[in-house]
Amino acid sequence: MSKIVVTGGLGFIGSHTVVELQNQGFEVVVIDNLSNSSIDVLEGIERITGKKTIYSGIDLREKKAVQAFFKEHNDIAGVIHFAASKAVGESVKNPLLYYENNLGALVYILQELEKKKEAHFIFSSSCTVYGQAEVMPIAETTPIQPALSPYGNTKQIGEEIIADVVKVSDLNAILLRYFNPIGSHPSAEIGELPIGVPQNLVPFITQAGVGLRAELSVYGNDYPTPDGTCIRDYIHVVDLAKAHVIALKRLLNRENADPLEIFNLGTGKGSSVLEVITSFEKGSGQKLPYKIVARREGDVTEAYANTDKANTILGWKTVSTLDEAIASAWKWEQKIRGN
Amino acid sequence: MSKIVVTGGLGFIGSHTVVELQNQGFEVVVIDNLSNSSIDVLEGIERITGKKTIYSGIDLREKKAVQAFFKEHNDIAGVIHFAASKAVGESVKNPLLYYENNLGALVYILQELEKKKEAHFIFSSSCTVYGQAEVMPIAETTPIQPALSPYGNTKQIGEEIIADVVKVSDLNAILLRYFNPIGSHPSAEIGELPIGVPQNLVPFITQAGVGLRAELSVYGNDYPTPDGTCIRDYIHVVDLAKAHVIALKRLLNRENADPLEIFNLGTGKGSSVLEVITSFEKGSGQKLPYKIVARREGDVTEAYANTDKANTILGWKTVSTLDEAIASAWKWEQKIRGN
Repeated sequence: MSKIVVTGGLGFIGSHTVVELQNQGFEVVVIDNLSNSSIDVLEGIERITGKKTIYSGIDLREKKAVQAFFKEHNDIAGVIHFAASKAVGESVKNPLLYYENNLGALVYILQELEKKKEAHFIFSSSCTVYGQAEVMPIAETTPIQPALSPYGNTKQIGEEIIADVVKVSDLNAILLRYFNPIGSHPSAEIGELPIGVPQNLVPFITQAGVGLRAELSVYGNDYPTPDGTCIRDYIHVVDLAKAHVIALKRLLNRENADPLEIFNLGTGKGSSVLEVITSFEKGSGQKLPYKIVARREGDVTEAYANTDKANTILGWKTVSTLDEAIASAWKWEQKIRGN
Repeated sequence: MSKIVVTGGLGFIGSHTVVELQNQGFEVVVIDNLSNSSIDVLEGIERITGKKTIYSGIDLREKKAVQAFFKEHNDIAGVIHFAASKAVGESVKNPLLYYENNLGALVYILQELEKKKEAHFIFSSSCTVYGQAEVMPIAETTPIQPALSPYGNTKQIGEEIIADVVKVSDLNAILLRYFNPIGSHPSAEIGELPIGVPQNLVPFITQAGVGLRAELSVYGNDYPTPDGTCIRDYIHVVDLAKAHVIALKRLLNRENADPLEIFNLGTGKGSSVLEVITSFEKGSGQKLPYKIVARREGDVTEAYANTDKANTILGWKTVSTLDEAIASAWKWEQKIRGN
């Protein structure tokens, strides 16, 4: 039973990935400093899987703590690194927080993995590295563009750091570029729980649905898209989590063709903001008040994935529809609000 | 008398800049962890200027040490940040060392400066950010190119981090992109003192001149240049140091047109490897044995500066010739080897 470290394992994507790992028999060690999550998530995970999760609250920005962790856990087969700050707007206001959190932790972990004869590493990257791609859908060969925010820059730099390390060490790595993860585990034991006002569309919608938010702002309806609102590729978080387990097994079983591989993870289908609203209204049976406001700086018009590489090489594809993903998010929101 | 912090102040460019700062009446606090320098340099500086230098040996990669330093020295008017690892080849072999040293220290220092109502910062960047530019000479508007090494990448990323911080804080910053610094102080009290085999041409030549190195390797004589060897813009380190003092005064006197300014620092004149060898032979009166070997990966054909911006806006230009710079390096080498 391989021991896998999941950093940021109590966060949104991290917690769902821990569940899928435990379902597949992996022993999981979660590192999470609770800066954007809650220790309660650990219990949610255990209620779903019935498995025990080893938990460490160390701060990955502290090199000595990272060193001590890997000394204590010297039998780790792989690391899935989710821990990072992820709000684009916050990164513009506080860039140093992002460079410190997202690069410092990465460097310290890689320094420990580099010492090993065999090390496997999965990195949370993002479709943000493509910026506004000229051609849709976005393949892994689509050119990277200059980052639109410090957040986006840390993802690009993170990819570069890993590539540099792979060239001179025994590290095997897979970079996973996520499109827009939404939804929650079907049990509604874990889900997305943003602190403060949600920066993403779906949690804002579900919070508005339970009355926590007054009105949804739709940032621009004058984009060159069929209904004028931005188009994204919304992927169910459980589908996304399963891709991590498949990628990890690929590394552990040495099926990777190259010590550094990159996969886009999305559904391959773009949905507009208004389509997401309609899906929510249909599923919940309630109207969602919204207003059209000015475009938001840094938003691209459209982004959705070419999933060919993940489909053929990982043998993975999404199974949940947009309606199902939004319904799961809504179920979770109602449950945690006691509705 | 303004108090200026010079990180890496016992290094090659740092130590010459400390001298020029003290000559201009600044009170200097040097931070240097001696990872690539010697505490003896402090005495060399004092012998030249007759001034006392405050010295701190803290490790800038330790956030708490940086915080404590700025708490103790709460009257700092500006920071000139030289401290960094700088060997291209080493950065390829050990990329994490470079990402940690060159980005960690920068982030922690900027976090302290960001807290201040007024903060001035000068960053050591490099012409390496231009890669092989299509047009010579290289102006500040010449496009940045993807980094050829982790070292070069840390300089590009450093520039990006500073630009992001300037946008949202009161920080004033000047990025100085150096071409190829050589030479030593005319007193020969301080100079370039690489640890191990020199990675740069001039210190290798002078070490060969005193018999420390057997034979110089010239990496390729089939480049599309007049004599087939690579062309660089060699700038006397004292000229370079003086540019830092001018840039600092520009910030302190609020003469900067923009909170972020960039200047290329070079002579404007390109010299080939064979021309450097000839200059040394002429100045020293001795033949230098060398052999032509294969090209070195990552070397560009030619790079020399367009100095218009620094000339007109900083009112600065180099005064030393290549022969003078090489003669000063030779004088220093002979002195430290007891010849």
